[in-house]
Amino acid sequence: MTQSKSSTKPPRLTSHRNPLVQRTKELKKRRFRKENRLFRIEGYREIDRALDAGIEIEYAIYCDSIPRFSQSESTLRRLESGPENEIYGTSSRVFKNLSQWQNPDGLIVVAKQKSTTLEEIQADTRDVFLVVDGVEKPGNLGSIFRSADATGCNGVLISDPVVDLFNPNVIRASLGTVFTTPCAIADSTNVIQWLRHKNLRIVCSAPDAVQSFLEAPIGAGCAIVIGSEKDGLSMTWLESCDELVTLPTEGFADSINAAMAANALLFESHRQRRIGV
Amino acid sequence: MTQSKSSTKPPRLTSHRNPLVQRTKELKKRRFRKENRLFRIEGYREIDRALDAGIEIEYAIYCDSIPRFSQSESTLRRLESGPENEIYGTSSRVFKNLSQWQNPDGLIVVAKQKSTTLEEIQADTRDVFLVVDGVEKPGNLGSIFRSADATGCNGVLISDPVVDLFNPNVIRASLGTVFTTPCAIADSTNVIQWLRHKNLRIVCSAPDAVQSFLEAPIGAGCAIVIGSEKDGLSMTWLESCDELVTLPTEGFADSINAAMAANALLFESHRQRRIGV
Repeated sequence: MTQSKSSTKPPRLTSHRNPLVQRTKELKKRRFRKENRLFRIEGYREIDRALDAGIEIEYAIYCDSIPRFSQSESTLRRLESGPENEIYGTSSRVFKNLSQWQNPDGLIVVAKQKSTTLEEIQADTRDVFLVVDGVEKPGNLGSIFRSADATGCNGVLISDPVVDLFNPNVIRASLGTVFTTPCAIADSTNVIQWLRHKNLRIVCSAPDAVQSFLEAPIGAGCAIVIGSEKDGLSMTWLESCDELVTLPTEGFADSINAAMAANALLFESHRQRRIGV
Repeated sequence: MTQSKSSTKPPRLTSHRNPLVQRTKELKKRRFRKENRLFRIEGYREIDRALDAGIEIEYAIYCDSIPRFSQSESTLRRLESGPENEIYGTSSRVFKNLSQWQNPDGLIVVAKQKSTTLEEIQADTRDVFLVVDGVEKPGNLGSIFRSADATGCNGVLISDPVVDLFNPNVIRASLGTVFTTPCAIADSTNVIQWLRHKNLRIVCSAPDAVQSFLEAPIGAGCAIVIGSEKDGLSMTWLESCDELVTLPTEGFADSINAAMAANALLFESHRQRRIGV
């Protein structure tokens, strides 16, 4: 299944039954991703971020009959220039069956899962990290990464994970920032220990807190901790926190969701860095 | 299909082929919702908000074999106390086929669509409205309503709508705040005229603006305008705006999505009302 780099036309996958096509499809399943330490990335933006982050590509499949934007064309060129990358062309019939998107942009890669340990994460005493504890919805987790990226947050730590970080909906909702954002997964006691060691204050968001998030200094030197949509934060976090803050719920709903809470806190943290508390 | 209010046991829907079951299923489709001016609401939180907002219920279906939270029990009591509400029980087999949720909580109502015109919307010169122009994803639109609700925004105006406001994903992502938030749908020129008439400044969010959203007074007397995920704001809005503001994109991604932008702007608007610019 290798190709000659000098040939102008990449090899084509012509059938649904092709083993590579089958394998790419199987990677829609979490179990299969876990067993093979592989995952799928669809879309030129998401693939670009993975390449930016040095994610190792196994192979790429592109559809030669879906009209490509100039951006996806340039992503394909980036993939072709990788010395080891295998590139396969395919028909729109095979591709649409592979894709998980309603309007696919014609590019899927399969890449090697990469994980970072807490010890590998760089942290300064002025940094701000976001801790995500038990968030269950892939779309919410992805959106949280995108907020962290936009606001210059130094990293996302996932404690007691529920969602697979390599779930296609995480990747898509994050627009690939799940690859470029420093990120480690660990159990909550280890994350707390690491934060203490790095001299970062622990600021937990909880609906019944008294202090507004606007009154807390969250622009530097802290970890902002967000709990799950359903159960909020675990006792481990609540007992370890230096500050408890609450977000407004001025209307009819009695709660805001994990992604909204993270977004509001990360933008406030960014504001405080720019303008002050 | 009426029931005696004095009977303790509501009538049961025992078959998938029951016309009421069929009709409730058909309402998953936009066309059918539009033709019949009806829509479905699933979940006790969402139904509670609809009842709070005086939405007229046609009938309710509950599943008598899904264990109910005390909250959904109390929503069912609220429905039963409505003088005209028809309530039907059903099995979990029929209900799961009706439901659009992975883990249904056992309550679906069918209600009458209600629309508000711009002229019916109350506005004071100190108010803040959110204008949503051409947003395409139901989940994003729903999440925007939830942010508007949480931050005390005075209403949401939808210009040149793409998404059906009665789409189940809008209702769910909004947690029913789509019902309780003052909301009108109109074309952009009419919305602009209305805002001018109400003396509300028009603040448009655009990625290439020079002014940060943190520098603009958005705590009172304005409309914050958000464009679609794909194309941003239309020229009609850009040419009519009093201020253009941008949101940070400090990381790898070159944009933030409509729901994130709305969330950040609405929380900043709330902050300015509480604390000042």
